[in-house]
Amino acid sequence: MIIDAHAHYTTAPAKLQSFRARQIINQARPSPAKLNISDEELEQSMRPQFKRMAETGIDRLLFSPQASAMGHHFGSELVSRYWSEACNDLIARIARLWPDKVSPVCQLPQSPGAGPESWVEELERCVREQGFIACNINPDLCGGREPWTPSLADEWWYPLWEKMVELDVPGTIHASASLNPAMHLTSSYYIGQHHNGAVELLSSRVFRDFPKLKLVVPHGGGAVPYQWNRHRGMHVKEGLEPFEEAARRVYWDMAIYDAEGMELLIKRVGADRVLFATEMFGAVNATDPQTGRNFEEVVPIFESVEGLSDEDRYNITEGNAKRLYSLP
Amino acid sequence: MIIDAHAHYTTAPAKLQSFRARQIINQARPSPAKLNISDEELEQSMRPQFKRMAETGIDRLLFSPQASAMGHHFGSELVSRYWSEACNDLIARIARLWPDKVSPVCQLPQSPGAGPESWVEELERCVREQGFIACNINPDLCGGREPWTPSLADEWWYPLWEKMVELDVPGTIHASASLNPAMHLTSSYYIGQHHNGAVELLSSRVFRDFPKLKLVVPHGGGAVPYQWNRHRGMHVKEGLEPFEEAARRVYWDMAIYDAEGMELLIKRVGADRVLFATEMFGAVNATDPQTGRNFEEVVPIFESVEGLSDEDRYNITEGNAKRLYSLP
Repeated sequence: MIIDAHAHYTTAPAKLQSFRARQIINQARPSPAKLNISDEELEQSMRPQFKRMAETGIDRLLFSPQASAMGHHFGSELVSRYWSEACNDLIARIARLWPDKVSPVCQLPQSPGAGPESWVEELERCVREQGFIACNINPDLCGGREPWTPSLADEWWYPLWEKMVELDVPGTIHASASLNPAMHLTSSYYIGQHHNGAVELLSSRVFRDFPKLKLVVPHGGGAVPYQWNRHRGMHVKEGLEPFEEAARRVYWDMAIYDAEGMELLIKRVGADRVLFATEMFGAVNATDPQTGRNFEEVVPIFESVEGLSDEDRYNITEGNAKRLYSLP
Repeated sequence: MIIDAHAHYTTAPAKLQSFRARQIINQARPSPAKLNISDEELEQSMRPQFKRMAETGIDRLLFSPQASAMGHHFGSELVSRYWSEACNDLIARIARLWPDKVSPVCQLPQSPGAGPESWVEELERCVREQGFIACNINPDLCGGREPWTPSLADEWWYPLWEKMVELDVPGTIHASASLNPAMHLTSSYYIGQHHNGAVELLSSRVFRDFPKLKLVVPHGGGAVPYQWNRHRGMHVKEGLEPFEEAARRVYWDMAIYDAEGMELLIKRVGADRVLFATEMFGAVNATDPQTGRNFEEVVPIFESVEGLSDEDRYNITEGNAKRLYSLP
């Protein structure tokens, strides 16, 4: 069985974006969405994912709203809340319609104007009332602009960690829109932010204060496995725990699109901390001229990775996710 | 022979930092430095580098002012100019005192208040009058704060590229101080900025407009070799030239501190585009408990990298640098 730990609803019906666009008009007096999207429209919108899953042997998606569209920098706390609820409710419906294929992951109504204590109500609603199994966590609420979001190491985040531990749900660090014209969103801003999230968490006391907290660093962790000894050296220099030990306090999703990257990630953090992932219909949804396959078709690439035991493969594609998440 | 393409004057006498500190007082009416540093003081300050070189078999440093101290975000254009001149003049003296060991690389008097056309005078002074062979180029002048520096792809940079081509000197992209408390300077901010610089340059028309421009991406290029297919996928998706071809339009310094990182870098971009580098007395100047050696002692690590021909090794440690830079 293959569980894909990282997939976003990038194919949502246009009615969802229409609501978002109307939020630009109604910014001063926001209101909840009335999307009027039918089950048939949902089914049509999910055909690409289900086709890709069938063709490539993926059994289940951990499915969340489109990450770049979270857009926490935009609008007030209430705008973010109504947008998050609209997105999350669609994910919830999809998970109820296709419980054998989709597990729901929520976005949080993060907003620069409000701290984590104001986001946890939606997390609780999603988990307790709608069966969500995880959340995505934007570490940079203003897309690079000031006021900068406190480091993930900062106690400012603790109300979120507390709630996540209470609900026993993991979270994936995932940035959203960037406001810096000098940074490509998916090729650079995401990589830099996810890398930074890992660096901050792993040099922090967060896991001493929350030993049961479960966090996932996506896309192979930015540059971390590649810059490995740079990180080990910094931890020694700053009197921190060995970096290679700190790295095993989080999970790492393997949405990285070549065998060398996969091998390096697994070698560095251990097969028991890696989660198979594709982020299908995402940043690299295109045909690789070298293989004739879509870049996102990572199942055969993973199969080509050498030096893995059957147990490693089971853990990466299924076992780790089943231990980490509440899955059927 | 081993040429170290990336080393900074992190051991400069305190008198240099005293001048910098006085610039905080004199911000409104800056004046040039009168450092009164003797040759003996310079010699004492260089002992760590010369000892490390002798112990580890490095023959020549491409030596520039401390990168984090460039601090272009601080003060006016004139503050930056006087600071850059003070730093560059010390580097020039060191290169004149030890021409068999040190080749000088300058910082530029970059400033958020002034575009590249105002930096090139110092570049010209350094190259024509003081024998400098290259420059460092900060891609993010306000340390992450707005106003954001235009992308390296932007025509805004062209006056600098023009001058560099005219003088036939290469430049290394190198960020300086970060103002974002949520980002570790060397473990994250640098990585993200150098990664971003590479992404922007390689997706740009800069090398079509300046085919003779020579640029170096340091520290193994952020996450680029590790996130390789992510970049290849983006280039396909956006109709750009194949990423693997674009990557060979720049050079990559190998200030990356483990064999797997070195192997991956060389495999991705080619041994003819890689420059041996340590950035000694830099971010990871500490003893690796796994080896008992300093993390920065990368000569034995490089020697352990497999699959390289003698020609590859020659190119990485000497040949590429001799083709790229004007060296004795």
